Amino acid sequence: MRVETLCTGDELLTGLTADTNSTWFQTKLLDRLGVMVRRSTVVPDLREDIVEALLTLSARADAVLVSGGLGPTADDFTAECAAKAAGVGLVEDVRAAQHIRDRFAKRGLTVTANNLRQAMVPAGAEVILNSEGSAPMFVLRLKACTLFFVPGVPKEYRHLVDTEVLPRLEKLAGARPKRVLCVLKTMGIFESQLDAKVQPLYAKHPRVTFGFRTQQPENHLKLLADDEAALAPARAECLALLGELVFAEGEQTLAGAVGEKLKAKGHRLALAESCTGGLVAAQLTGEPGASAWLESSAVVYSESAKQRWAGVSAAALAEHGAVSEGVALELAAGVRAAAGVEWGGAVTGFAGPTGGTAKDPVGTVYLAVCGPGVDAVERHYWPFDRERVRRAAAWGLMDLLRRKVV
Amino acid sequence: MRVETLCTGDELLTGLTADTNSTWFQTKLLDRLGVMVRRSTVVPDLREDIVEALLTLSARADAVLVSGGLGPTADDFTAECAAKAAGVGLVEDVRAAQHIRDRFAKRGLTVTANNLRQAMVPAGAEVILNSEGSAPMFVLRLKACTLFFVPGVPKEYRHLVDTEVLPRLEKLAGARPKRVLCVLKTMGIFESQLDAKVQPLYAKHPRVTFGFRTQQPENHLKLLADDEAALAPARAECLALLGELVFAEGEQTLAGAVGEKLKAKGHRLALAESCTGGLVAAQLTGEPGASAWLESSAVVYSESAKQRWAGVSAAALAEHGAVSEGVALELAAGVRAAAGVEWGGAVTGFAGPTGGTAKDPVGTVYLAVCGPGVDAVERHYWPFDRERVRRAAAWGLMDLLRRKVV
Repeated sequence: MRVETLCTGDELLTGLTADTNSTWFQTKLLDRLGVMVRRSTVVPDLREDIVEALLTLSARADAVLVSGGLGPTADDFTAECAAKAAGVGLVEDVRAAQHIRDRFAKRGLTVTANNLRQAMVPAGAEVILNSEGSAPMFVLRLKACTLFFVPGVPKEYRHLVDTEVLPRLEKLAGARPKRVLCVLKTMGIFESQLDAKVQPLYAKHPRVTFGFRTQQPENHLKLLADDEAALAPARAECLALLGELVFAEGEQTLAGAVGEKLKAKGHRLALAESCTGGLVAAQLTGEPGASAWLESSAVVYSESAKQRWAGVSAAALAEHGAVSEGVALELAAGVRAAAGVEWGGAVTGFAGPTGGTAKDPVGTVYLAVCGPGVDAVERHYWPFDRERVRRAAAWGLMDLLRRKVV
Repeated sequence: MRVETLCTGDELLTGLTADTNSTWFQTKLLDRLGVMVRRSTVVPDLREDIVEALLTLSARADAVLVSGGLGPTADDFTAECAAKAAGVGLVEDVRAAQHIRDRFAKRGLTVTANNLRQAMVPAGAEVILNSEGSAPMFVLRLKACTLFFVPGVPKEYRHLVDTEVLPRLEKLAGARPKRVLCVLKTMGIFESQLDAKVQPLYAKHPRVTFGFRTQQPENHLKLLADDEAALAPARAECLALLGELVFAEGEQTLAGAVGEKLKAKGHRLALAESCTGGLVAAQLTGEPGASAWLESSAVVYSESAKQRWAGVSAAALAEHGAVSEGVALELAAGVRAAAGVEWGGAVTGFAGPTGGTAKDPVGTVYLAVCGPGVDAVERHYWPFDRERVRRAAAWGLMDLLRRKVV
């Protein structure tokens, strides 16, 4: 089944509003029907553009979800364009008009002519009342295509798509096989290396589509198939091949993976962050319930804070410098001891744009993790700008924690 | 001039990634050229769809910005599709290949065949090297249309669009007068209130376009005019009218505004963060040179960390609870004293989804700032989800610091 989306509205083409409705619908459609949206189109509030798009999309798609332009104002004319595309007139839907009058009466407001304009729909359309707003949704057939017209207001859009559009799409899809998807999230490997690594599996799994996505510094491997029978063996082989590089599947985040490891052991963590300046703690505390496994993080941006909160010795700072293997380890051990918890993690580095030494230029970062039987330190060099070095360092420490907390 | 965008990538049709590039480009195009993107199209990683879209869009548009599918992996074949649409072959660009080899050599990595595939471009295309990544961008003419092909990685996309695509579009647009823009960034006022407040100025400045943009929890007022003579008086009147609500102009951030105030006084700041979990420190340390004015931040996620690092009394915790005016003030004063700096800031609240009390439900946040002659505390209630409460709280503390550090 070929499903497309059409959104109307100048605000979606002028940078004012991000189209979060479509992203939401895409996920729902994939989850409930296993169908990927085949194309997404955004047009401005121009009658000729809307009519042309309705004709073009309906000529090639089985179903189109059209949103926006059903409101009461001067730039709302999607129903009019739908009627024109279908070659019919606009008629007032009696139930929709009554629904609008009732809503206004309940609020003690007077109905104006442009409010009632929302009850005008293309002749022959199926009309569905909208419990979340005044404009109804309607369903129209254009040749072999079914078009669903819904308001763009997110609350109304989501309610109507969830309760009216998706069930109808499910029926349209009939006995069509659903598509299944799995996403393996990796750290510590470039996208091109990841591709090269799994390439030998392409031929073995012709019914699986291999895809890649980068969310710096994470790289995700995406497997898409028509059914579980095709997907499961490919997923298992990828997991075996990639081993520890995979930190999570699907919706889980790296922060969530760290939290799960700690929770499973009933352990807690304390951090000391220098160059990341709180990014690691901000990520970890983004997980609901983080207080069960994160005790604290000391953002030790000055040398005195490193000594005060993490007990780093003046000698180590003088001898090795704040950005060094020795100080990274002292930071991790120091906050661990101060907090009296099982695990300590630390990061110190030169994020730039200034700083650095000949041996450790800007982009050099030391990561350390201390815990029961664990004393790990890693040196990394990320020749990026300040923002990306900080992000790479924060993700690097979370990944080191994920690998070491066992 | 008719400009369209074409994005390729399954991830933009499966709900995995929101297309933030296009929103960014739309704003830039409008600000710099006064041109609205006429249509936005997203297609999956399917050769036939990409080729068809390239042909359709180029037949009706003057310029198309195409993004995505220029990487090294199996699902990257935009260059191949561009060649097919143009009816030419793919050729290796010698400079682009050398650029890829150089980037890998600098990192001590081996170039693989799929990395070098990124240097293959349609014959006759203008190739522009990409200082932010390995895949080059290229420019292709299809009949009367100019197509710009750029990578979809946001950092590479933005850099190339800013420095290469927009100047070329400006040239294509011809002698159109440049428009001037100013953005006043506000905190502590809703968008609708902001609009109502400046509305009386609309009629006085008919040559200025007033626009609004929300970046939760900031609201920006955008003034657009054909020349400085029209813009300057409108800007001055808005600044006078909005007063302290405006925290920055143009590119400056709220974190940058806080840093500038502290730097101007030669003062330093220490923080204690509970519910924001490091977000405030992460924002402040995002500013280069932050170590000159930020001493530390204690992410005190547990009660014991609040006592250990910020000297909060067990009595205050027992009497008022960790989320209270008293504890917020003790946190700010405590970290200030511990760090021996001029300013202390603190935030404590219920971010949810669980927690809260009858008096202080989830969404309640206390902010405190202590400094020379200043002892300020504010209670806020943001009935949002966890992520948005945390962001509102972090921005709230930065805004309180901006207003109090004088």
